[in-house]
Amino acid sequence: MRRIRIFDTTLRDGEQSPGASMNVEEKIQLARQLSRLGVDVIEAGFAFSSKSDFEAIKAIASEVEGSIICSLARAKEDDINRAWESIRNASKRRIHTFHSTSDIHLKHQFRVTREEALQRSVDMVGMARSLAEDVEFSPMDATRTDLNYLCEVVEAVIEAGASTVNIPDTVGYAIPGEFGTLIKALFKKVPNIDQATISVHCHNDLGLAVANSLSAILNGAGQVECTINGIGERAGNCSLEEVAMSLRTRKDIFPADTGIKTEEIIRTSRLVTKITGMYVQPNKAIVGANAFAHESGIHQDGLLKEKSTYEIIKPSDIGLHKTQFVLGRHSGRHAFKTRLGELGFNLSEDELNKAFDRFKNLADHKKEIFDEDIEALVSEESISVSDEIYRLIDIRITSGISSERSAFVKLKIDGEVVEKKELGDGPVDAAYRAVASMTGTEYLKLMKFEIKSITGGTDALGEVMITLEDDGDVIRGTGSDTDIIIAAVRAQLNALNKLEIRKRKAL
Amino acid sequence: MRRIRIFDTTLRDGEQSPGASMNVEEKIQLARQLSRLGVDVIEAGFAFSSKSDFEAIKAIASEVEGSIICSLARAKEDDINRAWESIRNASKRRIHTFHSTSDIHLKHQFRVTREEALQRSVDMVGMARSLAEDVEFSPMDATRTDLNYLCEVVEAVIEAGASTVNIPDTVGYAIPGEFGTLIKALFKKVPNIDQATISVHCHNDLGLAVANSLSAILNGAGQVECTINGIGERAGNCSLEEVAMSLRTRKDIFPADTGIKTEEIIRTSRLVTKITGMYVQPNKAIVGANAFAHESGIHQDGLLKEKSTYEIIKPSDIGLHKTQFVLGRHSGRHAFKTRLGELGFNLSEDELNKAFDRFKNLADHKKEIFDEDIEALVSEESISVSDEIYRLIDIRITSGISSERSAFVKLKIDGEVVEKKELGDGPVDAAYRAVASMTGTEYLKLMKFEIKSITGGTDALGEVMITLEDDGDVIRGTGSDTDIIIAAVRAQLNALNKLEIRKRKAL
Repeated sequence: MRRIRIFDTTLRDGEQSPGASMNVEEKIQLARQLSRLGVDVIEAGFAFSSKSDFEAIKAIASEVEGSIICSLARAKEDDINRAWESIRNASKRRIHTFHSTSDIHLKHQFRVTREEALQRSVDMVGMARSLAEDVEFSPMDATRTDLNYLCEVVEAVIEAGASTVNIPDTVGYAIPGEFGTLIKALFKKVPNIDQATISVHCHNDLGLAVANSLSAILNGAGQVECTINGIGERAGNCSLEEVAMSLRTRKDIFPADTGIKTEEIIRTSRLVTKITGMYVQPNKAIVGANAFAHESGIHQDGLLKEKSTYEIIKPSDIGLHKTQFVLGRHSGRHAFKTRLGELGFNLSEDELNKAFDRFKNLADHKKEIFDEDIEALVSEESISVSDEIYRLIDIRITSGISSERSAFVKLKIDGEVVEKKELGDGPVDAAYRAVASMTGTEYLKLMKFEIKSITGGTDALGEVMITLEDDGDVIRGTGSDTDIIIAAVRAQLNALNKLEIRKRKAL
Repeated sequence: MRRIRIFDTTLRDGEQSPGASMNVEEKIQLARQLSRLGVDVIEAGFAFSSKSDFEAIKAIASEVEGSIICSLARAKEDDINRAWESIRNASKRRIHTFHSTSDIHLKHQFRVTREEALQRSVDMVGMARSLAEDVEFSPMDATRTDLNYLCEVVEAVIEAGASTVNIPDTVGYAIPGEFGTLIKALFKKVPNIDQATISVHCHNDLGLAVANSLSAILNGAGQVECTINGIGERAGNCSLEEVAMSLRTRKDIFPADTGIKTEEIIRTSRLVTKITGMYVQPNKAIVGANAFAHESGIHQDGLLKEKSTYEIIKPSDIGLHKTQFVLGRHSGRHAFKTRLGELGFNLSEDELNKAFDRFKNLADHKKEIFDEDIEALVSEESISVSDEIYRLIDIRITSGISSERSAFVKLKIDGEVVEKKELGDGPVDAAYRAVASMTGTEYLKLMKFEIKSITGGTDALGEVMITLEDDGDVIRGTGSDTDIIIAAVRAQLNALNKLEIRKRKAL
């Protein structure tokens, strides 16, 4: 059995999805889950690109065990130094540096010759190697690079000390057969190739990222770069869960193993959705809501007779268990706490008290409480209660076709009660104006506003996710309630609390 | 250049997505758009499976020109007769019949021998051929079928008159190399294979449906079965837009053409989302909201210097044009009508008047009106105004943490004004109760309730899509407004109007 390394870049390339940027706390939470999932390498960010990227990588390097922590750097000294600074506290660490090699990029974008690009790549791999033992190099746009030149570059950077060489299909242009042939050619033509792991990094512009990665594995690649839910630039990256489950399901074709604990897949997928606000379509392979739903009568008939007639993956293999209604109005504190534990939440006593209050309140409005409801309830509690600066005391809204669209909101701000009524285009708009006015946050830009009904029915818990921008800095908030307007205000306050806490900490 | 036929099964396999069922009017609307898109074959449904499927196929066969209209049938006489009845009015028509051939299916589900399955397949192809000139046969679960037996079946059904033989990867189990090898083997081993078109039908359980289809094309397949947005059973089918754009973008690898007018892709994709309520994730290849969004600074720099550095498909190739704010408060009737025309809407004078009124009302609440806003406005007008039975006159809602969650709703029902106040778990719940009580529709089951903010910001138009179930019959409604509660009530009334019109027509 060959061992294929899984290199997750959800925190770097995934975060480059428009609207998916994450703050430091969210990145640490996700990195912990990636480590639990069993990824070999976590690409935690691009250290030189921003101060917050640097801080996040540094925090992950200090706090997350298990996986190699990797930082991306252009083939420039300052970038590489910054990358090294960001990961030096990690127990396992890697610098990943890159330079374009395709003529299109060299000529039109970087305006350097092939020789210059090669020399810089070699020099910078050497420099990275003087800092870190584990160095990866990527010839960007490799699939549109002249093959002989690509072979030269790969040979030279291995010679210079790169222990992993990654072949990116940067623009998502490759077709599986062609890409497999490219990898095979490298193994044939590069004399020192056995001294490095060959990796691939595929984009999904033609819907082929997973197929290309699998084709590369069949032709010798030993590492796959991927993201959870396939998020990333444009149409995204190779989807981790699809590669992992393809390898596992078709062991007859791929005599290869990964270190992925597949039972953690669905939880990781949901966490990424929650943190980035990027929903997964119902027909997404492996993690979509319908991935295991059989609708055809003929298929259902077959399944009842023998599972293998239509099912190639057991839902429990990815950690998916039948949703059942687990709690209700009469459930006590102990049942609630037990279920939280089963769902993987470990709350402090304070947080638990507050979550339980909200649970009882929800149970008054909603007969059956599902796991998803509980997760929604608890995720808002991730800010420690004692930290809460803005607290919702009351809200009253009125709206209608011929009537005033208004909101009256009462908040406790640093312990003091304030209230305000505002008009708006609708009740959400009115409530947001009232809160912004009381908190002095009218200057913030609302980037995204998404509403999701969590468990169906008009009595369902509605979940609202919003993204605010503060001069380039992104803050996300979530809120839930059976009343969609109240959920929206909770999401706003959740985001404002995060922002204010961050500001006070910075002082 | 080889010509690859595109066989679209959005209306049959796509409709098998949980929650995606469509009514007759919606199916006709979609079939018209598929014909405009240039698909060669439209699989319009499975005639025997239900009366409404039969009616929809029959209506499409009579009304939609351009593409071959196909009806699915099990290898049974009653099924095939019913399929024939449903398509006989079409100018180009095909019967598609199928029987399992894998031992897993034959042994555990159908409990017949290989010989019996072969004989039935041959007999039923012969019977179909006595009705229609164009007959397609599918050996279900072909990818898990013994190769020699599969070759025997393919040879025999071609001999019996099948002009297309489709090789389905029913459970989404195949890997591209393996699937290509299977197609190649058929071409080598089946002596009369040149007398039929070989087709493929791939499912996406491992994320490989598109790659498998492309691999089959490289090995001789001349038809690909696919769906818009890749919807379908479980993780769905091969995505039409990804196959079409892969072939077009990589002409160097595939010397093959389709009849697809790619500029119709984005419009078709959005129509399918609107009709089925199945959203596309932002990182979906080709049609996702981010598919052409470049976030990385390095990529943006390259694009500014030379497009081809990071862009392999021009957005306009799929009919995507930069969203710009096109209309506002001061736009007149003429500008509105012109933009509607450009967006492909041809409304009657009555419908236009009503849409314009709603547009002016929206412009009072929202500064910039985008194309998406206009599409949302107009899609609610698809019921002819004179048909409208329930009409929203007024609504007033109140809600809050400590206050009553109530809705007062005033409707005109068949010309008569009625009003009602109800309480609920939230304002949507309260309003739905009030409407249900006045319309006597409390017995309907709310299957799905989805809210989407169309263009960002709290002053955005909110769009609500709901799905109601009436004793197995599915009705979908959409509504939009800057007030999410009013949008929800509009969606409910839209669905109830459709249901009531259908009932009165049936009388």
